[in-house]
Amino acid sequence: MDRFFDPGSVAVLGASNDPAKWGFWLSAGALKGTHRRRVHLINSRVASIQGEPTFPSLAELPETPELLVISIPGSGVPAVVDEALAAGVRAFLIISARVPGAAEVAQRIISAGARLIGPSSLGVVDASNDLLLAWGNFTPGSLAVVTQSGQLGTEIATLSARSGLGISRFASIGGQSDVRAAEILSSLVDDAATTQVVLYLESFTGGSALVSAMQALRAAGKPTMILTTGQSDAGARLARSHTGSLTSAMDTVDAACRAAGAIRLSTPGEAVELAGFLATSWLPAGRRIAVISDSGGQGAIAADRAESHGLRVNVLDALTRTRVAENLPQAGHIDNPIDLDGAGEADLSVHSRLVDALLADEAIDAVVLSGYFGCYGEDIPALLDAELAEVSRLGESVHSHRKPLIVHSMSADSQAVAALWENSIPVYTSIESVMRVVAGAGFYASHSGRITEALERSGPVTPWGTGYGAARDTISAAGVPVPRALTLSRGAELAEVVAGSDLTPPFVLKASWPAHKTELGAIALGLGDATALEDAYVEMVGRLGEGEYIVEEMDTRDGAVEILVGGRQDENFGAIVMVGAGGTETELYGDTWLELAPVSHAEALDMVSRLTCYRLLTGWRGRRATDLDELAEIIVSVSRLIAGSNEIQEIEINPVRVTPDGALAVDALVVTNRDDDGSTDNDSSIHNDGSTDNPDKESR
Amino acid sequence: MDRFFDPGSVAVLGASNDPAKWGFWLSAGALKGTHRRRVHLINSRVASIQGEPTFPSLAELPETPELLVISIPGSGVPAVVDEALAAGVRAFLIISARVPGAAEVAQRIISAGARLIGPSSLGVVDASNDLLLAWGNFTPGSLAVVTQSGQLGTEIATLSARSGLGISRFASIGGQSDVRAAEILSSLVDDAATTQVVLYLESFTGGSALVSAMQALRAAGKPTMILTTGQSDAGARLARSHTGSLTSAMDTVDAACRAAGAIRLSTPGEAVELAGFLATSWLPAGRRIAVISDSGGQGAIAADRAESHGLRVNVLDALTRTRVAENLPQAGHIDNPIDLDGAGEADLSVHSRLVDALLADEAIDAVVLSGYFGCYGEDIPALLDAELAEVSRLGESVHSHRKPLIVHSMSADSQAVAALWENSIPVYTSIESVMRVVAGAGFYASHSGRITEALERSGPVTPWGTGYGAARDTISAAGVPVPRALTLSRGAELAEVVAGSDLTPPFVLKASWPAHKTELGAIALGLGDATALEDAYVEMVGRLGEGEYIVEEMDTRDGAVEILVGGRQDENFGAIVMVGAGGTETELYGDTWLELAPVSHAEALDMVSRLTCYRLLTGWRGRRATDLDELAEIIVSVSRLIAGSNEIQEIEINPVRVTPDGALAVDALVVTNRDDDGSTDNDSSIHNDGSTDNPDKESR
Repeated sequence: MDRFFDPGSVAVLGASNDPAKWGFWLSAGALKGTHRRRVHLINSRVASIQGEPTFPSLAELPETPELLVISIPGSGVPAVVDEALAAGVRAFLIISARVPGAAEVAQRIISAGARLIGPSSLGVVDASNDLLLAWGNFTPGSLAVVTQSGQLGTEIATLSARSGLGISRFASIGGQSDVRAAEILSSLVDDAATTQVVLYLESFTGGSALVSAMQALRAAGKPTMILTTGQSDAGARLARSHTGSLTSAMDTVDAACRAAGAIRLSTPGEAVELAGFLATSWLPAGRRIAVISDSGGQGAIAADRAESHGLRVNVLDALTRTRVAENLPQAGHIDNPIDLDGAGEADLSVHSRLVDALLADEAIDAVVLSGYFGCYGEDIPALLDAELAEVSRLGESVHSHRKPLIVHSMSADSQAVAALWENSIPVYTSIESVMRVVAGAGFYASHSGRITEALERSGPVTPWGTGYGAARDTISAAGVPVPRALTLSRGAELAEVVAGSDLTPPFVLKASWPAHKTELGAIALGLGDATALEDAYVEMVGRLGEGEYIVEEMDTRDGAVEILVGGRQDENFGAIVMVGAGGTETELYGDTWLELAPVSHAEALDMVSRLTCYRLLTGWRGRRATDLDELAEIIVSVSRLIAGSNEIQEIEINPVRVTPDGALAVDALVVTNRDDDGSTDNDSSIHNDGSTDNPDKESR
Repeated sequence: MDRFFDPGSVAVLGASNDPAKWGFWLSAGALKGTHRRRVHLINSRVASIQGEPTFPSLAELPETPELLVISIPGSGVPAVVDEALAAGVRAFLIISARVPGAAEVAQRIISAGARLIGPSSLGVVDASNDLLLAWGNFTPGSLAVVTQSGQLGTEIATLSARSGLGISRFASIGGQSDVRAAEILSSLVDDAATTQVVLYLESFTGGSALVSAMQALRAAGKPTMILTTGQSDAGARLARSHTGSLTSAMDTVDAACRAAGAIRLSTPGEAVELAGFLATSWLPAGRRIAVISDSGGQGAIAADRAESHGLRVNVLDALTRTRVAENLPQAGHIDNPIDLDGAGEADLSVHSRLVDALLADEAIDAVVLSGYFGCYGEDIPALLDAELAEVSRLGESVHSHRKPLIVHSMSADSQAVAALWENSIPVYTSIESVMRVVAGAGFYASHSGRITEALERSGPVTPWGTGYGAARDTISAAGVPVPRALTLSRGAELAEVVAGSDLTPPFVLKASWPAHKTELGAIALGLGDATALEDAYVEMVGRLGEGEYIVEEMDTRDGAVEILVGGRQDENFGAIVMVGAGGTETELYGDTWLELAPVSHAEALDMVSRLTCYRLLTGWRGRRATDLDELAEIIVSVSRLIAGSNEIQEIEINPVRVTPDGALAVDALVVTNRDDDGSTDNDSSIHNDGSTDNPDKESR
């Protein structure tokens, strides 16, 4: 990537004197790096730009530039690229949009052994290398930005500059015709100036490479914050199973983030806010916080906001409560939030004494101080020195405990506020910002990423057809427990077959082939004896015709909780596995959780624990707890089945009946990419990492 | 309230020269109003304060002050109050905290015909009257703040000053020992300077008066924004029915807000942000917005944030799409969000032309412009005039359509941004702020408040005991359909009784008295004939003993959806009515909605439509739609029953089985405040407005 971020020479095609044109900004930016590289401005109509002489064309440059920046109307780009390739240019940054035949242009660049960022890039910046090839105002700093939308990237850069964080590297990757986000992310691992990264993507093609790159950044201590949008749900809408329709693109990105140890956020503002925290503060080990406020109201609002972000404001243990009480002799009951109730005004040092007592508590991961602190010196100049001394003590406390203190101050920019930041203590003027960053940092600290096992994908697993019988055989072979059953061939003497088996009633009769059995009357439940079974069979065959029918023992155990277990191939991230509440609730309440597949037994248990209906499984209203281990094993089996198959597109077991005495899959659907005749459907080939081909759209 | 907000004379007891003391700020503030009122500073130890001569005691003042401000240690307050009452003081503002016997002090003040704000008040401010009796920096403006926590109020005032909105009136009501929030709110209706109000309360004692005051503010065109905390859920935790435990204090406050036409928000920042919008912009009539951006990425993030706030970014209709396309000839497919794709740079006036086309569409309630606009003149000075001219055109468009345009700009404080605000177009640097305020304003516009009918509360409605039989009779008498039934008296010849009735099987047998029938085996379902019924009866009596047993026809209609309908007396707001998903889901997923009772048929239908499970009722997966009107009638009946009774504390019907052919209440629980012997429980008396007595806590 050095040819993009630290080229020895750069030429700007489309350089301009008009500050309303991109060529102006690219030229002005490029010229800031002349002490480090040779800069050539190309314009056939004006002799000098911003005081620098121009060259009328690429051919007349004194050298072949290492990097060629193209900012001319899109229609002219293909010819220029061909000329530049012929001249030996090996790196292209194409700002132009609406390039005719853009894919072919990119292919010619790649074929020539050259590289391309763009088209529709807004530019690249590397502050360490004095490289500024973009429109916008970039302040040098520690945040790297990789973005599919250039202007969204400049918004992040602007907010980062405003917050004092600044930008280390900026790459607007535009159409990703050649250089893709994963490659740039990988280049940041060793970029000394970058300590955290924001990534904006609309397309996650090649998701596995992204996950790997973010894992490498994580290993280097560099958090990645991801922004994306939820609009590309077309894939999910087209899915044939609940599992498909219930696993949104956003849920899948979230699963990938957990695997990568990255954090998804919603807006540039949230990302920059958290980046500032991560660049400044110690990390919280978890979600348990203590709140100190000199206002009961502010403390209460803080606690509410904390809980709405999944943080826990727990009751203090006896030792800590005693230590707090020693510092607040006037206070009555000591609770969390802690109300200073005038003690701060009486003696500023109470802040650091309380913070130190709280940070010393192993059951507290972070302390939030909310209210007037930061305003003392501003409102009452005589107190400034005392306040700044207190800031130093707070800084010492934070560093000795290696835990975060975060301040919500009514002052935006007092000396004390600046000093807090310098002492590794982030300060925000809104309590919602405080809780958002603590929750985000807590999520980051507790999701360090995981490497999903790479299973070899193998061929046919479904022995016959596409119906329930085949699905049942497939999941059973994968280790999923199913009811005892027998299959009826055409015209079988049902009574004889059943009598010759060891099945015990009540029975269930199912026609194998319909996908929606209940709606079609293709299932008969609770058949008490062979006669009832035969009656149902005759009736069903009369209505639905001959075909594969299956008789199963009906699972009638009391206290069963119905759970859905599924899996599907994601076009970007490969195999995913999902668990959710079974039955109507699944679709109504969206009570589901998914992860990249395969998962381990422990990971499967963790997935189940994330469900709202988890309470039903663990002893609801005095009932016996269900067999979570067997449910977890089913999830593991389904995850390995979907991750290890190059044929299966979707699996859905709905419901798995989970009881205190084990779990049983009583209905199943398996969708493959084979036609009914068994041939593989060429339209959807699964790559080695499970991803499928998917073209990007461009975005600015 | 004039004696507090515009007294002819004021005395400050506890005046001080030390800027770290409250007495300093109160004195300094009071002295700013000397051109309007006489100000007396009282301090026995120093002769002058801030250049003004002091008086050594209250007795030595040249007059009895209209308002006495007390800021001395709490222990001295009772004696001073008595002295002041004797001297004829009729208005007290008590800043002091920890006043011994505060309730008695307040009572003495009230008995003397005087009024009190406090104790533990942080002060009062009235900018129009140059009254400044508080610690903090207050900028005159249009926002009134009424707060139970003083410092939370100053945080709001600080944010309001920073946003340019400022403060009209500020009242820190502290312990509310006499003057309560409702009274201050009422005084704001005619306060010309106040155009919007923020209220922070932790206790909603006397909730009906608050609702009335906010309705009056609403009628005067003054929105009220409410902040509160969710910690006082003790009442809900003690409730005996699901309805009790499922109706949180916060849900009840939300219902009161809808009735009042007020808005509940979570933080001071959110409140001030929305107040700024409401003070500046036209209101959106609903939740349908159009988004314009010069960045595909920013447009997509904007749409995602919109949807997360319940706004709708709908497809444009054909006419509007045509008008948009005429202005974007280069664009391909026109979608919402609209991507300018370079058109803004090419011609700034495209912004106003598009905004005008979109505001003209009756299916669009507001337009959001996100991205670079606001930066043109800042980045490219030659474009400043054109940008400001465009701002004027945008302003004209907004005023001619009387609809809002809201801008998300990457510039924080350019000339264009200032000009947008002056043209009634709010501007924010974060897209999440934009969507939050549009959603908040849309909520405000669509909830104009409602007057709940005041039913006379009357006496006994439950004819007998506390069990199911009584509950069944109570709801049936109120008009709720129940299954046909007969009650068995002790030792009845069951077979004879059933034969003599016109009940048809299958039957349900219930023991009337247990609250949790299923767990106790006090219910037997699906009894197919008189013999099965008799067997069940004998078994149940053998196990549970003699008592009231009820035989009902079992409702076996297919396609029934189980819904919970309930009601309870809220200690603050009186009767409330609730509807929710019945069965296990109610508690797992919290799918409930409640309103102040009673409700009309239309309001009941609206409540049902708010449930996530509403889809089950309206034709789920091709089934027939259920009888929503009959469900609504049950809700109406329950709401009138709870609102019209001075005995019933809680009602719960769970489930109501709702089918295409009507709805039927098949289980019910009624909790009264009578003991089992029929006498009324004195501990919980229901006031005329349904509220119960509940002491406030103090908060700063």
